[in-house]
Amino acid sequence: MPRLRLALAQSNPLVGDLAGNADLIVASARAASEAGAELLATGEMALTGYPIEDLAAQPGFLRAASEAVPALARRLDEEGFGELIVVVGHPEGPFAPRLLGTSNAPTAIAQNCASVLHRGRVVARYAKHHLPNYSVFDEYRVFIPGDELLVLRIRGVDVALIICEDLWRDGGPVGRVLDADAGLLLVVNASPFERDKDEVRLPLVTRRATETRTIVAYVNIVGGQDDLVFDGDSVVVDETGRILARAPQFREHLLVVDVEPDAAGEVPELENVRRVVIDAEAPELSPELSPDIAELPDDREQLWNALVLGLRDYVEKNRFPSVVLGLSGGIDSAVCAALAADALGADRVHGVSMPSRYSSEGSRSDADDLAERIGLHYSVEPIAELVHPVEEQLALTGVAAENLQARIRGIILMAKSNMDGHLVLTTGNKTELAVGYSTIYGDSAGGFAPLKDVPKTLVWELARWRNAHAAARGETPPIPENSISKPPSAELRPDQTDQDSLPPYPLLDAILEAYVTRRLGRTDIVALGYDAETVDFVTRLVDRSEWKRRQGAIGPKISGMAFGRDRRLPITYRPGA
Amino acid sequence: MPRLRLALAQSNPLVGDLAGNADLIVASARAASEAGAELLATGEMALTGYPIEDLAAQPGFLRAASEAVPALARRLDEEGFGELIVVVGHPEGPFAPRLLGTSNAPTAIAQNCASVLHRGRVVARYAKHHLPNYSVFDEYRVFIPGDELLVLRIRGVDVALIICEDLWRDGGPVGRVLDADAGLLLVVNASPFERDKDEVRLPLVTRRATETRTIVAYVNIVGGQDDLVFDGDSVVVDETGRILARAPQFREHLLVVDVEPDAAGEVPELENVRRVVIDAEAPELSPELSPDIAELPDDREQLWNALVLGLRDYVEKNRFPSVVLGLSGGIDSAVCAALAADALGADRVHGVSMPSRYSSEGSRSDADDLAERIGLHYSVEPIAELVHPVEEQLALTGVAAENLQARIRGIILMAKSNMDGHLVLTTGNKTELAVGYSTIYGDSAGGFAPLKDVPKTLVWELARWRNAHAAARGETPPIPENSISKPPSAELRPDQTDQDSLPPYPLLDAILEAYVTRRLGRTDIVALGYDAETVDFVTRLVDRSEWKRRQGAIGPKISGMAFGRDRRLPITYRPGA
Repeated sequence: MPRLRLALAQSNPLVGDLAGNADLIVASARAASEAGAELLATGEMALTGYPIEDLAAQPGFLRAASEAVPALARRLDEEGFGELIVVVGHPEGPFAPRLLGTSNAPTAIAQNCASVLHRGRVVARYAKHHLPNYSVFDEYRVFIPGDELLVLRIRGVDVALIICEDLWRDGGPVGRVLDADAGLLLVVNASPFERDKDEVRLPLVTRRATETRTIVAYVNIVGGQDDLVFDGDSVVVDETGRILARAPQFREHLLVVDVEPDAAGEVPELENVRRVVIDAEAPELSPELSPDIAELPDDREQLWNALVLGLRDYVEKNRFPSVVLGLSGGIDSAVCAALAADALGADRVHGVSMPSRYSSEGSRSDADDLAERIGLHYSVEPIAELVHPVEEQLALTGVAAENLQARIRGIILMAKSNMDGHLVLTTGNKTELAVGYSTIYGDSAGGFAPLKDVPKTLVWELARWRNAHAAARGETPPIPENSISKPPSAELRPDQTDQDSLPPYPLLDAILEAYVTRRLGRTDIVALGYDAETVDFVTRLVDRSEWKRRQGAIGPKISGMAFGRDRRLPITYRPGA
Repeated sequence: MPRLRLALAQSNPLVGDLAGNADLIVASARAASEAGAELLATGEMALTGYPIEDLAAQPGFLRAASEAVPALARRLDEEGFGELIVVVGHPEGPFAPRLLGTSNAPTAIAQNCASVLHRGRVVARYAKHHLPNYSVFDEYRVFIPGDELLVLRIRGVDVALIICEDLWRDGGPVGRVLDADAGLLLVVNASPFERDKDEVRLPLVTRRATETRTIVAYVNIVGGQDDLVFDGDSVVVDETGRILARAPQFREHLLVVDVEPDAAGEVPELENVRRVVIDAEAPELSPELSPDIAELPDDREQLWNALVLGLRDYVEKNRFPSVVLGLSGGIDSAVCAALAADALGADRVHGVSMPSRYSSEGSRSDADDLAERIGLHYSVEPIAELVHPVEEQLALTGVAAENLQARIRGIILMAKSNMDGHLVLTTGNKTELAVGYSTIYGDSAGGFAPLKDVPKTLVWELARWRNAHAAARGETPPIPENSISKPPSAELRPDQTDQDSLPPYPLLDAILEAYVTRRLGRTDIVALGYDAETVDFVTRLVDRSEWKRRQGAIGPKISGMAFGRDRRLPITYRPGA
């Protein structure tokens, strides 16, 4: 059996930064060459970052991205890596404009491609077939599907090439791999992290290896991109399901492994299968490798790492020097501060305690304690003297007076952001966001919400995990025990607790899990055994909070292209130089 | 030739309100029966409202919507309208769950349907083929396509039935209408308004009538739904392109018209065409009609009406008693106040002048003048005494001090909203939004932005049009001449004008039109003759303002379903009773 040395580049591209991403690929090619690899695979859209959203509808962007592919091939050759076969993910287009229904405006058309570069040229190209269009994915909006499986013949081995969703769907290209009699199945991916994703992704890779009787090499990107976090976890699995190599999660890595796929035999003629022979020479025999086989940490640690990376990359990719957040003494702000310190170092984290007349002594000392444990920059800005004149002039009472306090705090954080360039972190969790238990333009103000998708009960779990993790390593647990154990309160009026307004958090989170995540209706949730009145109360809060979650104002669309539903771009986007 | 009396129900459904929307359809059936109609058509998704976004992924919602269709058929019969053939738009589902790629979570599947009700039963159903998935549309995300054209035989006439996008695309069902030899082509739509849409929509209807040699009856919904405005403009056109009837734009209307389509002959056997014979009796011969043929007003008036309806429906569908907005004396707030008064009546509009130490005497008197002209509720809240303590305590300077003023104003409006239940209108225009020339959580605070999609130069045009329109009718022009003619200024520092920071608005709007609406790249825009430095400046502002336009904070996604990209619901959504 022929031996092939593969390198999988688990890299962290930045959406829109064609030059920077090309540099990353060249650096991977250098490292792969030095490691004696013959074939280097990068992730899906490694040249542009993923997802490019409506950048795919800008013909100029597509042209630049498409032209960057042959340019990259030439550069690789010039820099001495021409013999290395490099698979690079990128959009290809624009193709002929299509007529858009209502406006007759032409939109660009692109395909989601992986190109094969060798000896300074683009020698083959595969276009993704299955375009995911659910959940966070909108690929049918911006791409058109391909219809051919690509099989590369490399030194007597047939390597089938597919992209991400193609692996998940029965039929389509993955259904033709067995018939095409390939020895290796290379899958390039941009597959975001989710809780327990390793429980579905690795079993899928293993199953496909068995079904297609190939070695499967699965390469994923890594990094935070707006609200997505890619975990990497690139892996190579043989026909029996054994893991040959696995990259660590949540960091860049070049995974190098020797594989010995079945040699190619007589090839059957198949429809929708394109075969390309690559004129590759056998490399010098390089010494044997013992490839990395990373172990996944437990669920809590994976989750913590995902949140840290998501926060770090949002800050770095948007070039913020530092972050600022309010420290209330409560659990949410404590966990956010700990995440920020882990992501950026305590020296780039600025905490502000903003006590009001309703803030308990305990809250103030919990905030002080947190700041000291973490070692972040800390300041205290009492709000009573700022709130009073507004309350007085407008004669505010009730909820209006409560919200005013949260909004003055929002103003303080934004003012500090304007003065010093900090990104404001908003500390609300998913439970609050779901039921609207926050003040719009108050505590919800900020550019990044580290806990946006973390329910309250899980915030507590993470806090306990992070403290235990520190203790186990002989470090100071970052989160004050008191912030974890005390009953949560917004402290916007005397003796207020969250449970004045909301069901207990374990119950609330269970109902939200059923309603939001599992999309069950009222009747089905009641049938699970929850009190009907509570279910009605919670689902109504969720439905009514949609506007709060969006914040950016709705407005009538009257032209061919409006912001919002109509035009969707990544936030973290750097047009090329 | 047989004569058929058609009724087209141009109605205004509310997304999610199954009971209320069914009532609207029954009311249309009553009016259609009284007018002697035999066939009543409602708009696309008339039973649920449009767009339902991710409600289509909630199995409970789909079940309720699907069950509402036979229930409506029975009710129509019980109320005495069983002989009337009623075509009703609705989602049908859920069908078998499909496996979602990454999470293995089943999502519901629905089709976008039009059902035919007769004598208490659902006698036929058509499922939309072409699912638009560009611009504001995401139908491929939530629906699966149908694959059969439906032809109804009604008293010797063959009536082909299709839905919205099906009319726009060559091939597919509209391509089979001619071969199927239909006499009438009925198209049910939810087709949103855009500037100059009448220049493409009516010509398309006319062209299809000629191509298919049918009379085309085109029924559209009307009303504002979050950021979409449906204009109605339902129309009936004969085989020669002559308009037989046309409903007025922007209001509910039952369009009744007699048509005399070719009688059905020998029918060819065709693939993907389903034929259903409806056992209809000839009605009593009703007296001849002279159908409405509404004339469209000019472009400015259409646009004004769209903005008024979008604002009114957002307020009414969300059940706000009133609106509040800041009146700066400038053009944007003046136009918003005039729109609000036209939408709701001046008595439901609350204007607040919030002068700072930098507000000119002219600005204050322009705001007073506007309030008096319109007759809205008016109050003055000076901000100097509220800004000072914050500025002092935090030692703010420069942009931080400028933004503080805007944020104190945002706080005042939100406090008034909390006290009295007003919806806050934010008065920024599309140009500001595009380049980020506004203060986040300041003047951009608010739930609805009437001018969100109106460039600054068009704001001025609309102001002039509205004043001229008033003058022509002998009414007081609502907008002070001075607000139109003076140079625009944010008045956040002494002698500031917008042109200190931005290119002149006509130039800026022209570049934005090229970059945002036409999606041209830098090189193409420069090739149009614009100064390269200005183009770079403007496009960079647009790219950097994406986060400001979203406001609702980004945050790492870690679960199977997060808010934002991942889960998209209408804001204006009333779960059924």
